[in-house]
This record gives sequence, structure tokens and C-alpha cells, in this order.
Amino acid sequence: MKEITQLAAELGRRLQVLNAHVTTAESCTGGGIAEAITRIPGEFGVVRGGICHLFQPAENSAAGCAGGIVRQSGGGQPRGGRGHGQGRPGKSLARFAVAVSGVAGPDGGSPEKPVGTVWLAFGVGDEVTAERQHFPGNRDEVRRQTVKAALEGLLRRAAAEIENQG
Amino acid sequence: MKEITQLAAELGRRLQVLNAHVTTAESCTGGGIAEAITRIPGEFGVVRGGICHLFQPAENSAAGCAGGIVRQSGGGQPRGGRGHGQGRPGKSLARFAVAVSGVAGPDGGSPEKPVGTVWLAFGVGDEVTAERQHFPGNRDEVRRQTVKAALEGLLRRAAAEIENQG
Repeated sequence: MKEITQLAAELGRRLQVLNAHVTTAESCTGGGIAEAITRIPGEFGVVRGGICHLFQPAENSAAGCAGGIVRQSGGGQPRGGRGHGQGRPGKSLARFAVAVSGVAGPDGGSPEKPVGTVWLAFGVGDEVTAERQHFPGNRDEVRRQTVKAALEGLLRRAAAEIENQG
Repeated sequence: MKEITQLAAELGRRLQVLNAHVTTAESCTGGGIAEAITRIPGEFGVVRGGICHLFQPAENSAAGCAGGIVRQSGGGQPRGGRGHGQGRPGKSLARFAVAVSGVAGPDGGSPEKPVGTVWLAFGVGDEVTAERQHFPGNRDEVRRQTVKAALEGLLRRAAAEIENQG
């Protein structure tokens, strides 16, 4: 629990540097990623989040969703530190998106998608990357590890964006 | 934490009896209500949830939002156990909505809306009721008490719906 709060706090600091927000689309975590990010007060953080409980667990639905939400958030626009965004701190349009889709269990597993299979898709600007993970444990543990992986993935991407701007 | 999981489990059982879902719109809780409801596996629970971090804390925004989301979910339709829904278990259109808006802190308080002021609005079918609460403590405590109050409010309304059908 504390580890997730610490990751969220670190992410909050990086988002503040970038003046950026995160948009979430959560299936198996049911809002847990947004809940973690908004533990940290501030004007940065999650602006819009969505939960869709009946989202089909699949890589393409996570990646398509991350791509769609990052476009809706203006992520395809020029970002601070690059092009005409440069030199206008406070006007950055950098947006991050994360979408997760998976089988938290206890039901819904199959040989191809056993319980614990989770796709995470990240959008930064107009780039979307997706990864498949398998997390051990029960529903609660799969959900917690998914939230942690989402925060860690966002943290790495926020660090890379800060480096790009530097 | 356990208390919230227990409330969510009890709500899940009642939603299963009603074959009903909950739609959430969360400002100060950032997804915590949906996260709690989806701890419990099953096809009932949250179908759609939304998080809007920049939602203005006010009674009318919570009530308007609950009214809007319950209408979008088909909550104004005849429900199972009444009218032509009767005798068709599995076809109930009963929908519950909860919207919360408040000042979780540490910033954002004012004399009229001190930190801890939270509006909860509940929609059941086409009826929307709103209540103002004040929860003591820090951001984390205000958020946890808001999630608990939302689950308790949904539980009472689900119990009343079961009684209406009985």
C-alpha cells in the first residue's frame, strides 16, 4: 500500500515538472490506478479517468484504448520542450495515458489467458506501446501488481520526457 | 480497509439479487468507490465509472452528475419487479448511480466549504437525492470516509429496492 503511495508521489513530482496529466482507462483495476494517483494532492495528476468493467481483456483493446484516450487528451499536439512548445513552461500539452485490461480472477481465465494475464498500454504523445504481463496471486494481488506496474511504466516515461526537455 | 471490502461484498450480493449495476462519477475520491466495488468479482458491480479531477465541489454538480449518469445508464426505464419488468428476472434495468464531489484537502478549503466537505448524490431510477457531509481528518481519511458513505448509501438504496420487489 505504502509502496503504491510512494510511486504515486514520485509520479506526481514528475508530472508537476512536466505540467502534465494522466488519463486512465481501467478494466481489471476498476479505478485503482486513478485512486493511487489522486492520493497525492495537486493540480497535476489524473484529469480524466474511465472505468469499463466489461472491456474485453486483450492487448489490442488496451492499446487501442490508450491511443484513443491520449488523442482525446490532446497528446498528439506538440509538447513542451519540443518545437513551438519550447520555452513556454506552463503551456505544455504533454499527456500520458494508461489503459489496462486483464483477467484479475478468480473467473475468466483460459489456457491462452490464464488468471493474472494483464495488458498494459501506455500513450505518450502520439506513441503507444503495449506490454503483456502475468502477475501471480489472487484477484487483490493481481490488481495491486497491475496498479504498481502502471505507475512504474508512467514513471519511466515521465523521466524520459523530462530528459528530452532537459 | 477491511470494512470497505465488507461493505462492497454486501453491496455486490444485493446488486446480484437485483441484477443491477452501479455507475460512478468521482471527483474527490478519484476512483476509490469503483475500486472498492470491483474488489468483488462478478458480472454485477460497476459497469461504467468516471473520474473527473477538476469537477467543481458543489451539491448541484454532484446531483446533476448523478442524475445525468443514471439517465445514461437507462435508470429511467421500468425496473424489474414493477410494471412490465415484473416476472423477467435477468432483464431488470435497475441502475444505481453515485456521484461525489468535495474538498479532500489539504488545499481548496474555504469558510463555506472547509476541507472535509463532501456532497454525495445518489440516483436510483429517475430519483436523485443529495446529501452534504463533513468528514474529519486528512486527505486520506476524508477520501476513505467518502467511499464508505457512498457504499453505505448504495447499500440502503439497494435494500429498499429489494424490499420494493419482494
